[in-house]
Amino acid sequence: MTSFATRLRARDRIVGFWQVTDNAVAAEHLAGLGYDYLCFDLQHGLIGYAGFLAGVTAVDAAGGVSLARVGANDPAPIGRALDAGAQGVIVPLVDSAAEAAAAARACRYPPAGGRSFGPMRAGLRIGPDPRAADEAVACVVMIETRGALDDIDAICATPGVDGVYIGPADLSLALGAPRPGAVEDLPEFEEALTRIAGAAESAGIAAGIHCFTGAEAARHLAGGFTFTSVSSDLSHLESAARASLQAARS
Amino acid sequence: MTSFATRLRARDRIVGFWQVTDNAVAAEHLAGLGYDYLCFDLQHGLIGYAGFLAGVTAVDAAGGVSLARVGANDPAPIGRALDAGAQGVIVPLVDSAAEAAAAARACRYPPAGGRSFGPMRAGLRIGPDPRAADEAVACVVMIETRGALDDIDAICATPGVDGVYIGPADLSLALGAPRPGAVEDLPEFEEALTRIAGAAESAGIAAGIHCFTGAEAARHLAGGFTFTSVSSDLSHLESAARASLQAARS
Amino acid sequence: MTSFATRLRARDRIVGFWQVTDNAVAAEHLAGLGYDYLCFDLQHGLIGYAGFLAGVTAVDAAGGVSLARVGANDPAPIGRALDAGAQGVIVPLVDSAAEAAAAARACRYPPAGGRSFGPMRAGLRIGPDPRAADEAVACVVMIETRGALDDIDAICATPGVDGVYIGPADLSLALGAPRPGAVEDLPEFEEALTRIAGAAESAGIAAGIHCFTGAEAARHLAGGFTFTSVSSDLSHLESAARASLQAARS
Amino acid sequence: MTSFATRLRARDRIVGFWQVTDNAVAAEHLAGLGYDYLCFDLQHGLIGYAGFLAGVTAVDAAGGVSLARVGANDPAPIGRALDAGAQGVIVPLVDSAAEAAAAARACRYPPAGGRSFGPMRAGLRIGPDPRAADEAVACVVMIETRGALDDIDAICATPGVDGVYIGPADLSLALGAPRPGAVEDLPEFEEALTRIAGAAESAGIAAGIHCFTGAEAARHLAGGFTFTSVSSDLSHLESAARASLQAARS
Amino acid sequence: MTSFATRLRARDRIVGFWQVTDNAVAAEHLAGLGYDYLCFDLQHGLIGYAGFLAGVTAVDAAGGVSLARVGANDPAPIGRALDAGAQGVIVPLVDSAAEAAAAARACRYPPAGGRSFGPMRAGLRIGPDPRAADEAVACVVMIETRGALDDIDAICATPGVDGVYIGPADLSLALGAPRPGAVEDLPEFEEALTRIAGAAESAGIAAGIHCFTGAEAARHLAGGFTFTSVSSDLSHLESAARASLQAARS
Amino acid sequence: MTSFATRLRARDRIVGFWQVTDNAVAAEHLAGLGYDYLCFDLQHGLIGYAGFLAGVTAVDAAGGVSLARVGANDPAPIGRALDAGAQGVIVPLVDSAAEAAAAARACRYPPAGGRSFGPMRAGLRIGPDPRAADEAVACVVMIETRGALDDIDAICATPGVDGVYIGPADLSLALGAPRPGAVEDLPEFEEALTRIAGAAESAGIAAGIHCFTGAEAARHLAGGFTFTSVSSDLSHLESAARASLQAARS
Ligand SMILES: [Mg+2]
Ligand SMILES: [Mg+2]
Ligand SMILES: [Mg+2]
Ligand SMILES: [Mg+2]
Ligand SMILES: [Mg+2]
Ligand SMILES: [Mg+2]
Repeated sequence: MTSFATRLRARDRIVGFWQVTDNAVAAEHLAGLGYDYLCFDLQHGLIGYAGFLAGVTAVDAAGGVSLARVGANDPAPIGRALDAGAQGVIVPLVDSAAEAAAAARACRYPPAGGRSFGPMRAGLRIGPDPRAADEAVACVVMIETRGALDDIDAICATPGVDGVYIGPADLSLALGAPRPGAVEDLPEFEEALTRIAGAAESAGIAAGIHCFTGAEAARHLAGGFTFTSVSSDLSHLESAARASLQAARS
Repeated sequence: MTSFATRLRARDRIVGFWQVTDNAVAAEHLAGLGYDYLCFDLQHGLIGYAGFLAGVTAVDAAGGVSLARVGANDPAPIGRALDAGAQGVIVPLVDSAAEAAAAARACRYPPAGGRSFGPMRAGLRIGPDPRAADEAVACVVMIETRGALDDIDAICATPGVDGVYIGPADLSLALGAPRPGAVEDLPEFEEALTRIAGAAESAGIAAGIHCFTGAEAARHLAGGFTFTSVSSDLSHLESAARASLQAARS
Repeated sequence: MTSFATRLRARDRIVGFWQVTDNAVAAEHLAGLGYDYLCFDLQHGLIGYAGFLAGVTAVDAAGGVSLARVGANDPAPIGRALDAGAQGVIVPLVDSAAEAAAAARACRYPPAGGRSFGPMRAGLRIGPDPRAADEAVACVVMIETRGALDDIDAICATPGVDGVYIGPADLSLALGAPRPGAVEDLPEFEEALTRIAGAAESAGIAAGIHCFTGAEAARHLAGGFTFTSVSSDLSHLESAARASLQAARS
Repeated sequence: MTSFATRLRARDRIVGFWQVTDNAVAAEHLAGLGYDYLCFDLQHGLIGYAGFLAGVTAVDAAGGVSLARVGANDPAPIGRALDAGAQGVIVPLVDSAAEAAAAARACRYPPAGGRSFGPMRAGLRIGPDPRAADEAVACVVMIETRGALDDIDAICATPGVDGVYIGPADLSLALGAPRPGAVEDLPEFEEALTRIAGAAESAGIAAGIHCFTGAEAARHLAGGFTFTSVSSDLSHLESAARASLQAARS
Repeated sequence: MTSFATRLRARDRIVGFWQVTDNAVAAEHLAGLGYDYLCFDLQHGLIGYAGFLAGVTAVDAAGGVSLARVGANDPAPIGRALDAGAQGVIVPLVDSAAEAAAAARACRYPPAGGRSFGPMRAGLRIGPDPRAADEAVACVVMIETRGALDDIDAICATPGVDGVYIGPADLSLALGAPRPGAVEDLPEFEEALTRIAGAAESAGIAAGIHCFTGAEAARHLAGGFTFTSVSSDLSHLESAARASLQAARS
Repeated sequence: MTSFATRLRARDRIVGFWQVTDNAVAAEHLAGLGYDYLCFDLQHGLIGYAGFLAGVTAVDAAGGVSLARVGANDPAPIGRALDAGAQGVIVPLVDSAAEAAAAARACRYPPAGGRSFGPMRAGLRIGPDPRAADEAVACVVMIETRGALDDIDAICATPGVDGVYIGPADLSLALGAPRPGAVEDLPEFEEALTRIAGAAESAGIAAGIHCFTGAEAARHLAGGFTFTSVSSDLSHLESAARASLQAARS
């Protein structure tokens, strides 16, 4: 079976879902819907370690693929997410090619990187050969700062980086938006998206972006991006419940 | 402020939401949307005691009202749900007026009932006077068996029973449906609903029914029922996420 | 070493503390203060199974003795509390000698009782001989209903019942108090206490009562009771924190 | 694929493992070893609801089969175990054919039984047709009291009972053993085993027994029993760790 | 309503309470007593992420204000505490003005700082405008090292630092005390307090100090400090329970 | 009583066990078997903070000694592990004498180090004198990189470092092994072991190594190492359960 990392690197069209709450039961149901991955947000999501571990287990029960957006570009949490069974990480706030290289190193065993060996749960599905594990793990770095934008070509060319992923809230603030995503008067934002997707394409790596609706996801997949997450369990649940309330009271 | 129990007894039009997963963060967000209550399903929901306690706390943080559908018509879990801060219970599988009376007794302190005193968390919001607490707690019994249907008038006339609540899945199976809710060829089902709502109205208590969509809720509120829950967090999340996936891939 | 049950049966003067929140760290600290036992309130306390298991472990870490006030007079939760390592149970709402006998049976293995064998954690400290385990476990029944008061002599004479324990909140309501503990105009309450303590003394079993302050505990220990719990972590914490706030603002 | 319940009813030779601690990671590893089922002990095991839910999810992640030994012969915990995804229950302390019938009823929807509908997690794998769910769920009753032994033929003939399961610790105590399993001088014990296995064979249902070693399991499977659990994670871990310590110090 | 941060910056007299155990129920009760804030100690307290999340929710249920003493001066845990709903952070071991500036940056969105956007729970109460969120968040840095003492004027003048907070245990050790708080022979300690309070006053920011009793808090509020925490739930509970035991045994 | 740290420094022969799952019940059972310590693996183990806290409490209940292999060489997690009651830490990936000095500093209070004071649970067993606490805490650094091997003499001579501990999986990969532990064709590995044990002996500190079987542990203890951990609960459980399955099916 083709691994998720392989599909990502091949720039396949990939659609994931983004979970921000600690809810393994929901994760299992969501992972069974057909999304290509379920990403647990360990940076802004309200999920501790135990919740994440339960979540990746639930996704495996559904036959799905788990990713983790880790809390920081730091080998310790990256290693923990991978040991628990995530098939890749999305690393926030990568500000330069040097930081991208550090993220990549944290995802791979020596000699390719510096990951420490101990795949206590991941080893159930990815065998003991470190090289195979390196292959099977996806390293995605987030582009959401001005520094990253300025260094985008070098970031995309960093060995071991399998994809870039735009965080539109942070990137828009970084570019001067008054509120996250308020980019109507900020043409630089759309230009940045184009620039990033182009750099990824040139480097032959995946180009991803965080979205909030399926329609937005479709538009980006049609416009140069190869993968996207629809976010989030919490906002989807709120929208659906709000709609039901309106219907009930109408 | 008028308590929830008072509104229920007054047969106000009331719309709640139904939560089946252990997710206090979602509970807080949902309780802030304007629903009249959030009911934690401790019978079929995937929620243990710790999750329920976190959930009622989260609903209080949102300024909302919590109910518990308890796991059985048993004084111990009913007392625990109320001590934790639920403003009422929905008691499943009540099969007779005698069982309804037992449910009512479990919700009230002596002399009205047999609830044991110890509102460790509920006491934060409902004062030390047992009579006031009895007033502030809603006791709703589920009508979902043939026995209950046969005894519906006596159930509705049971002192301390503030409302009845139809469980359509179980009731439809009890009436012979091949699958839960498959009532197209089962006119008895619709007749039962009418009969139950009528009995409640005659007795002057609330008439409730479990629903799955806002439209269904609106129809029932227009057709003789005074309250309804839209169910559930899990199914709403699945529907919304499925729709986003279709849109993303279209 | 003399077991707690032996001391209780010998009508030693015993003072325990009463915990109502899920807080193993606090349990360990409290159990180290010199109390004869720490009782986890699984009826009205806000403690689920996992919290209780952590709590008894913490008490063992402090070298203390754990009891459980179980949620109901039911063999399943009684067995679970004992299997987890409680050295005794306090069984609520025992209303007759027959119910007291059922509580006693639930605490002891055949042939003395009907407890099912499987002391998964308790077995670390109490050996495999069922007779020794029966000896080492204390069975205390609560006297807090009118039925129990009426049947007090027979309850105290029930084989396997090691002590009675008055729940003053429920007992006062049962006797007609307007609020729990509001017994100023209810001489029957004080008479009931005397009657219960006397019946226990005649039967040669322990006589206990739930208290809220150390002074109240001392008064009862001087007046015919052999054991008492000071209640609770939550009220003690609130009182102490309230006093500190007043001092800080004075 | 043949369901576990079908294999059990067909009297296939089946070997399971028995888990008594709250450890989903271990459950996933154990379920991948090739055992026919992993049974979570919710009676004597140290596992609360949240731990059980995590455990069944982990077993599904390993592609295994989960059973639950529930805490009591009570519809509420039986329903909760099945709703969470257990493919069957082992019901303790069933003392008569009437109690066996109650256990069977709790496992099946109307009209076959009285299970309430709400398979919130189980529904992920077992479809919405109640009859199919009834088929897919195994109901096993424990024979571990004198009453059960006396009524064994009627128990085995009870519709909906798919197997019997001997609890040797309790059964040996019930028959007069001085310690659980101390049956050297108790020929009635071995006779009881033969009697129970024979009754099950005559009735065409599965005959199971709890074991502590693989050798014991093999002996019973060769001697008339069709299924067995090897118990437990805790005792296996202790034995293995003790052996390693001896080797390390030798 | 005036936000906590505004009151802190205005150098109002503020008294908080300090929680070191994982106990949301206690947090809710404590937050209702009238303290100006409840601070969860995520550095030395025995509270993991899930416990903290439950705690801030409970404080919101009580209508209180939550702070977090984070584990380190690191943007990741600072962001997580704020996203979860803390209205401010107390950052330990800030050793210089540069470190203070880093702490302040971690609390504020661009362009004021570098906080990443994703207030998954905080967004329930603080709206989407990053500038308003920046205003509503309090950044307090701890003065508890010799480096901080030497750089105190620059630290107090650091933009975005809303207050300083003395950790007397660490500061006393840093100044040479033989045991934490053993400052009888260490006049430098009292001088340091005066120096720090004075620097804060000159800079117009809040001056805080950790206390252990209400009397100590009152003395400091009268002597130049504008805010203080009374510490802790654990020590208050121990003191109160110890006093009750003495009274019970007297 | 001689503390663990004292025994370690005295180069006593010490055998520990290594736990990688969140299972306090198992920890209590394991700690009672006679191992000199139980080490919780917070780097590669599947244990969050709450699980670790429960684990150290359980080890104390068994009268054992807890260590923590922390997730990184970082003062915050080192302090948290010690505050929770670990009697020492094993610090991974220490690559130089400077890093070893940082690890040692994180374990000791001023003036010896920079540990922040707040032993909220550790203080139950280690008194308030910081010097005594410093003495009672063991600091072990892992040698598992080429950098560490090159700097081994300086690392061993670092004040405050009580022992070195070889991580054979990472060290073998660092030295070029194709898979962790595949050192048949890698004589450098065995030479490195000799070199490290010798450096520790020269410096008079403890020499430790991670093992997987008791036999391997015995061999290393006979060959120059003074302490070893047998790893792990998960692998021991799998081996024992696999053996039972084979026996059952034979
Ligand atoms: Mg971002
Ligand atoms: Mg129903
Ligand atoms: Mg009571
Ligand atoms: Mg049994
Ligand atoms: Mg400090
Ligand atoms: Mg390593």
